[in-house]
Amino acid sequence: MTRPFAGLADWGTTSFRLWLVGEDGTVLGERRGGEGMATAAGEPGGFAGVLGRHLSALDAPADLPVVACGMVGAKQGWVEAPYVETPADPDTLAAGAVRVPGADRPVFILPGVCQRAEGRFDVMRGEETQILGLQASSRQGESGELVCLPGTHSKWVMLEEGRLSGFATFVTGDLFAAIAGHTILRHSMTPGDERFDVPAFGRAVRTAFEHPAEFSSWLFAIRAGGLLSPDDAPHAASTLSGLLIGLELAGAATRFGGLDGHTVRLVASGPLAERYRAAFTTLGLDAIEADGEAAVRRGLLAAAGKILT
Amino acid sequence: MTRPFAGLADWGTTSFRLWLVGEDGTVLGERRGGEGMATAAGEPGGFAGVLGRHLSALDAPADLPVVACGMVGAKQGWVEAPYVETPADPDTLAAGAVRVPGADRPVFILPGVCQRAEGRFDVMRGEETQILGLQASSRQGESGELVCLPGTHSKWVMLEEGRLSGFATFVTGDLFAAIAGHTILRHSMTPGDERFDVPAFGRAVRTAFEHPAEFSSWLFAIRAGGLLSPDDAPHAASTLSGLLIGLELAGAATRFGGLDGHTVRLVASGPLAERYRAAFTTLGLDAIEADGEAAVRRGLLAAAGKILT
Repeated sequence: MTRPFAGLADWGTTSFRLWLVGEDGTVLGERRGGEGMATAAGEPGGFAGVLGRHLSALDAPADLPVVACGMVGAKQGWVEAPYVETPADPDTLAAGAVRVPGADRPVFILPGVCQRAEGRFDVMRGEETQILGLQASSRQGESGELVCLPGTHSKWVMLEEGRLSGFATFVTGDLFAAIAGHTILRHSMTPGDERFDVPAFGRAVRTAFEHPAEFSSWLFAIRAGGLLSPDDAPHAASTLSGLLIGLELAGAATRFGGLDGHTVRLVASGPLAERYRAAFTTLGLDAIEADGEAAVRRGLLAAAGKILT
Repeated sequence: MTRPFAGLADWGTTSFRLWLVGEDGTVLGERRGGEGMATAAGEPGGFAGVLGRHLSALDAPADLPVVACGMVGAKQGWVEAPYVETPADPDTLAAGAVRVPGADRPVFILPGVCQRAEGRFDVMRGEETQILGLQASSRQGESGELVCLPGTHSKWVMLEEGRLSGFATFVTGDLFAAIAGHTILRHSMTPGDERFDVPAFGRAVRTAFEHPAEFSSWLFAIRAGGLLSPDDAPHAASTLSGLLIGLELAGAATRFGGLDGHTVRLVASGPLAERYRAAFTTLGLDAIEADGEAAVRRGLLAAAGKILT
């Protein structure tokens, strides 16, 4: 096999992904596992052990350098890589990398990004690498490009002139679970119901987008609707999802000066991509979909190029 | 003792209150207990047993009629009293009362109120009696009077020409518990911290009132602020409370055409009254405080007058 240039690791809270790459980014080998930041310290040999075993399984040279991003660099991770502040760019990220002391090979952990401007405190770890990896394929207009990464804590990020200039986190998925499981709406949910009712979802997206201030009242309407018009009750989960995603889009629109004037790049896959696609369509907005895995690999490779050469 | 005219019961999910009153509303005796709708069925003799024991403790005549309101009339209660629709007034409520079959004394349960207009499904049980009981002391302007009843499921109600013309429920307290206990914000909360930091609360009220669309993003800012500026972390609970109450006020303002043009009557007591008072003051709004207990008793008495005479 071609001698690899580096190992690139996307090391999150609950997942681990590793690629061996050549200097031009060619993928020479790949591994994935569940030993995320939350459990890696408890594995044999801790973080070093997890990384070592995955590298061995790929027959990586013993001295191969590794560059990692994500929650592995949090305070509870392997070694803390303090946040760099917005605006951040590939150079800032590479300069903020922390080398793991005492590791038996060079291991660098990229920092997360924080925002303090105007009291809009926010943090991310991992998404910044993904987002800056999108830049190569970016079509930034004059007003910048918005990137949407949906999830438990959805991130909306503004890219301007190759820099991550600002961002906002929306706790959409986290709220869904808390509301569906721990408020009166739990009585409206059908356990195990994974159906995605597109019309109910679309109506809810539009409602929350147009009336975001009344969000908490529309939540109760799900419960009341179930009592007054039980035939609609099976759509409670789709409606809740639509209200939360509609609220997120309304928030991103006001935070970043409207969604119409921007190219929005949607980084998602599977059912989550389907929902956000449906939400954008409902509101008549355009979004370009992007592959998050390719993006994080490109971002890690760019950082590795700066750190290792 | 003067022979009482009726027993009046405010029978909610978790609480029971009973007054013996004369025909003019004079209170001749009072009892309160924890045998709410949620547990009364499991007490000896069920709902009838609970009511009978409290009446006996007050030496009430064996044939004294009783009028009750609240969750006792829900599907899971003693006997279901179906909702009447908005607009509702004292006559509608009295006409919707359901007599408990087979009880050893006349017992009437007042209905709740539901709203179906414009798909704004909503329900209440108990608050309608309280609100219509406020009418005697109401100063309704041309634009109607708004009543705010804060709580787990805060109710905002529009009174126009003596009728309950529309309302909205905001799941404010329910969301507080779910978010503080079951999202990432649980890491920001200090267990047992009951402090009410007025400046942090006021800032949060204003933030959510002015930027309701960004609500879910400001939630995450509590977490991020704790990571980036830990000295502010002790105020997390006050900030969360302020964001939720600010969102509720923003929702009520858009739902009912602004808060400036209305007299708002605030029905609350204790710490909850303190918070809503602080929120109104922060936003420069006026609210007149009202006694909820006196109001429900007046509402029950008015209904009893129509049903029993």
